[in-house]
Amino acid sequence: MKHETHSTRRVSLYDATLRDGMQGAGIHFSESGRIRFAHLLDEFGIDFIEGGFAGSTPSNSRFFELARREHFAHAKIVAFGSTRRARIAVEEDEQLKELLQAETEYVTIFGKSSMLHVTDVLGVTAEMNLRMIEESVTFLTARGRKVFFDAEQFFDGYKQDAAYAMRTLETAQSAGAVGLVLCDTNGGCLPHEVFATVQAVVANFPQTCIAIHSHNDSGMAVACSIEAVRAGVSQVQGCINGYGERTGNADLISIIPALELKMNLPCIGTGQLQNLRTVSIVADDLANLRPSPSAPYVGRDAFCHKAGTHANAVMKNPKTFEHVEPESVGNQRQFVLSEQSGGAIVRQKAKELGLDISKSDPKLIRSVLKEIKQRELDGFAYEAADGSFKILLEKMMKKHTPAFELDGFRVIVEKRGKDEPCLSEATIKVRVNGKEELTAGEGHGPVDALNEAMRKALTHFYPEIEHVQLTDFRVRILDPQDATRAQTRVVIESSDGTRQWGTVGVSENIIEASWQALLDSVEYKLLDASRNRESRE
Amino acid sequence: MKHETHSTRRVSLYDATLRDGMQGAGIHFSESGRIRFAHLLDEFGIDFIEGGFAGSTPSNSRFFELARREHFAHAKIVAFGSTRRARIAVEEDEQLKELLQAETEYVTIFGKSSMLHVTDVLGVTAEMNLRMIEESVTFLTARGRKVFFDAEQFFDGYKQDAAYAMRTLETAQSAGAVGLVLCDTNGGCLPHEVFATVQAVVANFPQTCIAIHSHNDSGMAVACSIEAVRAGVSQVQGCINGYGERTGNADLISIIPALELKMNLPCIGTGQLQNLRTVSIVADDLANLRPSPSAPYVGRDAFCHKAGTHANAVMKNPKTFEHVEPESVGNQRQFVLSEQSGGAIVRQKAKELGLDISKSDPKLIRSVLKEIKQRELDGFAYEAADGSFKILLEKMMKKHTPAFELDGFRVIVEKRGKDEPCLSEATIKVRVNGKEELTAGEGHGPVDALNEAMRKALTHFYPEIEHVQLTDFRVRILDPQDATRAQTRVVIESSDGTRQWGTVGVSENIIEASWQALLDSVEYKLLDASRNRESRE
Repeated sequence: MKHETHSTRRVSLYDATLRDGMQGAGIHFSESGRIRFAHLLDEFGIDFIEGGFAGSTPSNSRFFELARREHFAHAKIVAFGSTRRARIAVEEDEQLKELLQAETEYVTIFGKSSMLHVTDVLGVTAEMNLRMIEESVTFLTARGRKVFFDAEQFFDGYKQDAAYAMRTLETAQSAGAVGLVLCDTNGGCLPHEVFATVQAVVANFPQTCIAIHSHNDSGMAVACSIEAVRAGVSQVQGCINGYGERTGNADLISIIPALELKMNLPCIGTGQLQNLRTVSIVADDLANLRPSPSAPYVGRDAFCHKAGTHANAVMKNPKTFEHVEPESVGNQRQFVLSEQSGGAIVRQKAKELGLDISKSDPKLIRSVLKEIKQRELDGFAYEAADGSFKILLEKMMKKHTPAFELDGFRVIVEKRGKDEPCLSEATIKVRVNGKEELTAGEGHGPVDALNEAMRKALTHFYPEIEHVQLTDFRVRILDPQDATRAQTRVVIESSDGTRQWGTVGVSENIIEASWQALLDSVEYKLLDASRNRESRE
Repeated sequence: MKHETHSTRRVSLYDATLRDGMQGAGIHFSESGRIRFAHLLDEFGIDFIEGGFAGSTPSNSRFFELARREHFAHAKIVAFGSTRRARIAVEEDEQLKELLQAETEYVTIFGKSSMLHVTDVLGVTAEMNLRMIEESVTFLTARGRKVFFDAEQFFDGYKQDAAYAMRTLETAQSAGAVGLVLCDTNGGCLPHEVFATVQAVVANFPQTCIAIHSHNDSGMAVACSIEAVRAGVSQVQGCINGYGERTGNADLISIIPALELKMNLPCIGTGQLQNLRTVSIVADDLANLRPSPSAPYVGRDAFCHKAGTHANAVMKNPKTFEHVEPESVGNQRQFVLSEQSGGAIVRQKAKELGLDISKSDPKLIRSVLKEIKQRELDGFAYEAADGSFKILLEKMMKKHTPAFELDGFRVIVEKRGKDEPCLSEATIKVRVNGKEELTAGEGHGPVDALNEAMRKALTHFYPEIEHVQLTDFRVRILDPQDATRAQTRVVIESSDGTRQWGTVGVSENIIEASWQALLDSVEYKLLDASRNRESRE
């Protein structure tokens, strides 16, 4: 069961994000984003960065042009293309010329290794396909390029006609290819099938770089890549965050820590693994995607403990419920509140508030947990609403002083004709230390207007709220079967530029729910500000 | 490489969504949602449905109470709990009593199988832990329960002290457990480790039901489950859509088609596989989560081909670029909105409206596709809003007659004191055939009030809308970075008792977005009613 120590073996990494990854729905990198991404991977220690399908779009050509002017300390930029067309001489093939024009040391060309594809897609003979592979590889190597041959549909081809699939590899290798890439293009293989096929190929080509290139259609691309490494490949191809067409490519962000931490196979730069989360998040940012909170190793929730027993045990000994140390991949442990969690978390949160609950009545913890359980039944959720949780805790500990008294508010939304936009206005009346304030606000919707009115009324008394902004606003209908009469949960994220906090409100009425969350947001800011003042004094 | 045909072997499925799945951040099922979910799985052919941690929360207890009154044709409801506490007699253990009170035929109890956990978490001796397992299983079997013993941290425990881990299983089995569940609780195992360990356990317990329970911390839970099946387990545990704490549990939605289509191991009801996508989507809906577009098998993009070589090849022969037939799992092939694919859909919708688009100008199809693309960029989504799609199509075909003219509306939400509930009122002024109508309505929130006012105003002219009810109301904030100024998408489901239809609205202002969806809802009903009248005449 123990892993062997391959101290002399090194697996190289080949990132296909800028080519294969960009085929994923909704994934776009800007021109400068591509260059930034390449530097990110270079610093991280990725060996090969596929820059795009050479010549297929102006932005791909432009990338190679820009990349030539950049210095990459470690990574090689690779241009991607295909073997020559069937009915054209190799020297006449525009696509191969484009590959040369990318002026990269390495190029990858894909060719057919499955008979089904040779006959049904290309419509050529088996021999013709081999000639296309041979001539294309020779054309490029003769012009000084190092060529990876990407054997498209290799695994499916091997199942159908193993001898022919193997011949395509042999052809590419004899023509001078430095690497043979085994692609599970349709992503349909199971891990043990990959293992067996890779073993056969590696035995046939003991001196050649064999690479694995998996797609995630079966939800097992990471496992297939790991099995291929066990079977002897010396290169893994994939995309950061598993980007890619359909269900995506093999996710390098999951593969890298498995190789480094679990298989003792160093593959990125020394000390770089702790940047794993940063690489993942920056990539999402460049691609304009929301990071997945449940992503292995790097997700916000990857080391988040909710259940009471788990949370208690992790506090005693992290190894009990964590497969790797969160810090080793640049992540951190989190505890969240929920109906299952116990007193330890309540004490922890109180401590963050500067309130020592251990000195208080232990009854308090039970009553806090009971109150939270009841509120969660009513629809509240505190995982993302730490601010509301702390205000609640402060109230239950009888330490809470309301920032103001609400006399009332009114929100009006009006539409004066079928093509007119809705107008939203709010008025609010509050009292602070007996002083009354009546203000009005307008906004892009009823909640925006109410927020404006409240802020106007309070900034006068509490200048510290002036810079508080709402940064996120989420609405969830809790019992949708009851349609517009359902309970509505509103979660608001606020920020004062340096800190962020979440608050929550629940009501049948969306305005009331929003109001609760807005109120908690302001009160939490004031609580936090007064704590900071105290700690300075 | 070929799979063996296990014609007599059947792998049972155990769903842990309502317990383990609910520990995922942001996953909540309502009370009625849990029951609906259980029926969904029962019809699908899942064998065991874990209903929750018995007694841990009122909502868990309530589920078992409700579930007893329901009829499940196939599935067994399972109550979950733990072995007795260390320092308490088994008869005194509250948690075991709660398990009995759930009154289920099957119960699952977790116990420790890792020495690290016995010493560092429980703080008891190795022998004491075995006694706790033995007594707890005996206690439950003596009271007529069939017991699954959930060996927590089994794989990590086995690495550390294989003999002891095995003894915990033996103890549970001797005490009468009908199943032994091997848990990779921390999700850190690699697939080949799972394979080897499961083989050893299966060899030791050839007559007992051995189950695998994986977590996705390494991104390989599906593969680990498949490897465990290859190594001989007879039950797979997991959650629908891979819900669960941290990075989630093994995703049954990926495991089921792998077993059925790739390993020839039937595991759900005959003919049920084509409901895979529906089960996945309904579960997301009940959990109030966004379906993942890139989910294997069931995601919107799982069989989506971008224009170019892939798309052309798939049109020639689907096997060239698809690992399974999309229809086999209830999904469908998609080509990124192109003239060919989009046009067919537009013609189909028009046909459902009774409008023959093939006779119209082919320019129309292009302009409809262009309009839809633009609207999707603006935030509209028509997948669940067929009503709005048809109204839009009717308008673009210049066949639309507005049901009424809107002069305007006003919605007021008022709160008259900090502890008073919000009051919501709306007034609306409409004209039908030149006749003016001004009405008012009140409701539980601004949208409810507006809906009431509109309905009052129109029922007079259109009695057929009297029985239309809103059955669902969903709100999604589209650009949460802009907080309350973000675009809001509202999707409404309406029903007249026999038919259901969805409509959509998008605006910065939630009231405006709701209004658009309400308006489409009424217009669609009137359109549908007039078509039915025509077809009768």
